[in-house]
Amino acid sequence: MDLPDPALLSTPALLLDVEAFDHNLATMAAALPGPRCRPHVKAFKSTAVAGALRNAGHGTFCTATVRELIGMAQAGFTEDLLLANECLDPRRLAALAATAEQTGATITVAVDSEATVDAAAAAGLRHVLIDVNVGLARCGCDPTDAGWLAERARGGGLEVRGVMGYEGHLMGNPDRSVRSDGLEVSMAALLEAHRAVGGEVISGGGTGTYDLNRWVTEIQAGSYTMMDTAYAQLGLPFRQALAVAATVISTGTRNGRRYFVADCGLKALGMDHGPPDVELADGSAAKVWFCSDEHVTFSLPDDAGDGAAPALGALVAVRPAHVDPTVAYHERYVVVRGGAIVDEWRIDLRGW
Amino acid sequence: MDLPDPALLSTPALLLDVEAFDHNLATMAAALPGPRCRPHVKAFKSTAVAGALRNAGHGTFCTATVRELIGMAQAGFTEDLLLANECLDPRRLAALAATAEQTGATITVAVDSEATVDAAAAAGLRHVLIDVNVGLARCGCDPTDAGWLAERARGGGLEVRGVMGYEGHLMGNPDRSVRSDGLEVSMAALLEAHRAVGGEVISGGGTGTYDLNRWVTEIQAGSYTMMDTAYAQLGLPFRQALAVAATVISTGTRNGRRYFVADCGLKALGMDHGPPDVELADGSAAKVWFCSDEHVTFSLPDDAGDGAAPALGALVAVRPAHVDPTVAYHERYVVVRGGAIVDEWRIDLRGW
Repeated sequence: MDLPDPALLSTPALLLDVEAFDHNLATMAAALPGPRCRPHVKAFKSTAVAGALRNAGHGTFCTATVRELIGMAQAGFTEDLLLANECLDPRRLAALAATAEQTGATITVAVDSEATVDAAAAAGLRHVLIDVNVGLARCGCDPTDAGWLAERARGGGLEVRGVMGYEGHLMGNPDRSVRSDGLEVSMAALLEAHRAVGGEVISGGGTGTYDLNRWVTEIQAGSYTMMDTAYAQLGLPFRQALAVAATVISTGTRNGRRYFVADCGLKALGMDHGPPDVELADGSAAKVWFCSDEHVTFSLPDDAGDGAAPALGALVAVRPAHVDPTVAYHERYVVVRGGAIVDEWRIDLRGW
Repeated sequence: MDLPDPALLSTPALLLDVEAFDHNLATMAAALPGPRCRPHVKAFKSTAVAGALRNAGHGTFCTATVRELIGMAQAGFTEDLLLANECLDPRRLAALAATAEQTGATITVAVDSEATVDAAAAAGLRHVLIDVNVGLARCGCDPTDAGWLAERARGGGLEVRGVMGYEGHLMGNPDRSVRSDGLEVSMAALLEAHRAVGGEVISGGGTGTYDLNRWVTEIQAGSYTMMDTAYAQLGLPFRQALAVAATVISTGTRNGRRYFVADCGLKALGMDHGPPDVELADGSAAKVWFCSDEHVTFSLPDDAGDGAAPALGALVAVRPAHVDPTVAYHERYVVVRGGAIVDEWRIDLRGW
């Protein structure tokens, strides 16, 4: 990744390579045009990114938090917003209902229990999807419960638009045939639930199954816009558009081996998928030793040439292992094209 | 931990148990009164917490970022602020110098190379500490370089106040004798550097060595204010004051075992030290299955009684494994006393 002039950038800075980003959006829009892809706001948390997605033809979105959803509605993304998550908080559900009223947004929430159905109805919300467990031990009802939950929802005055089911247990599996075979089982459960529920929507999927899941009416994908080192293992046609630019601020020697310290640490990176990759100026991959709160320590690859060592003050590109919790730490994307800073986009949908 | 009434709290919410917090502050203030402890702002990122520390007698602080330091100075903590980290960014260093001018704050920065010395001098800063590597492969010069770096700094018009050296490689070791033996070696290196550098300050240490490190003039400790499950392994006299309150939003069954899903995930927790603990209402520890972006999935302990299962909508306490990157995700502490919400403190020093 071409990095900006260090004199123009304070670090750590979350860089968005707009050429890779545009490639990713064009690739998805060609594969799943318009509402066939419902971009997942949780991955990028930014109405500016949502604007680029709308320009690419996607007008429907899903979110993981109420704040994301309300922020999207208030920014004018009112066509069709889905809270793809359960919420039992009466204040937040009331805020969603008020937002639908004020902005004219179509707002749908996922429900998977009597309690979530009743809370949605009590708050004055209008639309729900029945969230069905298709194999991930997280939210979603048992497929055999979907029918009566839909009935209860309709009895409470809610429009049941259909079902959703997230095959998250398959999403990161690097073996495409495992993802594909698992999908058959998961989607059979979702379709069974849909037969009991009815409605025009069958929502599911993600970046890892976007081109394998042929059963759903729409794919909920977000990571493809940015990508990370975990998704990069899957052989998908999306490029890594995201890196944290970090400045080399110190260097030392340990057991005869020189190491370098850059100012991008645990507070600038989602660490649940492991440490990041560090890319040197020549594109080669450094050996990452460890991260601490504000630092990453690394050494050069064994075959590094004499000129590979970064000078103090030079920038390196730190590639996060997991895009979503990385983005949630940052206030803005610094948008770059061929190493030049061309824009800044606020990450305006953080928090809850 | 006694949790608030769910009707009064939107989740995930970072709770600060003020009784445990006050205990921690009193314990440290008794062991290391006044400037013997230089609280590390990176752990709590809040001028409200800093105010409580000042009330406990500590008026000197250190920070890991320039934003933390400037925020502290602007909030009136001007007595003695140390950037315990290297910075090569001319704009940020100039902002530090301007802040010293505007607020009257005494601002000192760590330096460990010609480049960092020269950048501090060029920015018009006045005070530095020579940062010495005492065993952690991160920042800090070789002890044998400390003397000439101090000379260079003095030649550039900087006052060299002394040395600092962080024994971070020992900090989390659960074996007290390992921490103690390692300290002998590390502090011998720091004292060797100090002999060459001079100055009244020998700064080092942290929560894990606060009562073992008898060589330094001041201990840089922050985690003791809040604590986490990693530090809880060390048998220190500090209590866990921090938890993320989460709402149980879904439940299901996998292989005959019931699981629960609460709304506290990767974006509300530092995950580099591993997954959090989940504490049920009766104080017992749940079995944590996994975290995803906005969720934690857990089951009951094997010996759980019939009444242990949380209802949908109930709160659980999620104890983070690492306090610093957890706090950095949140906008505020909800301050609780015996389960009652008594205050809210902004986490106003996030970002860079």
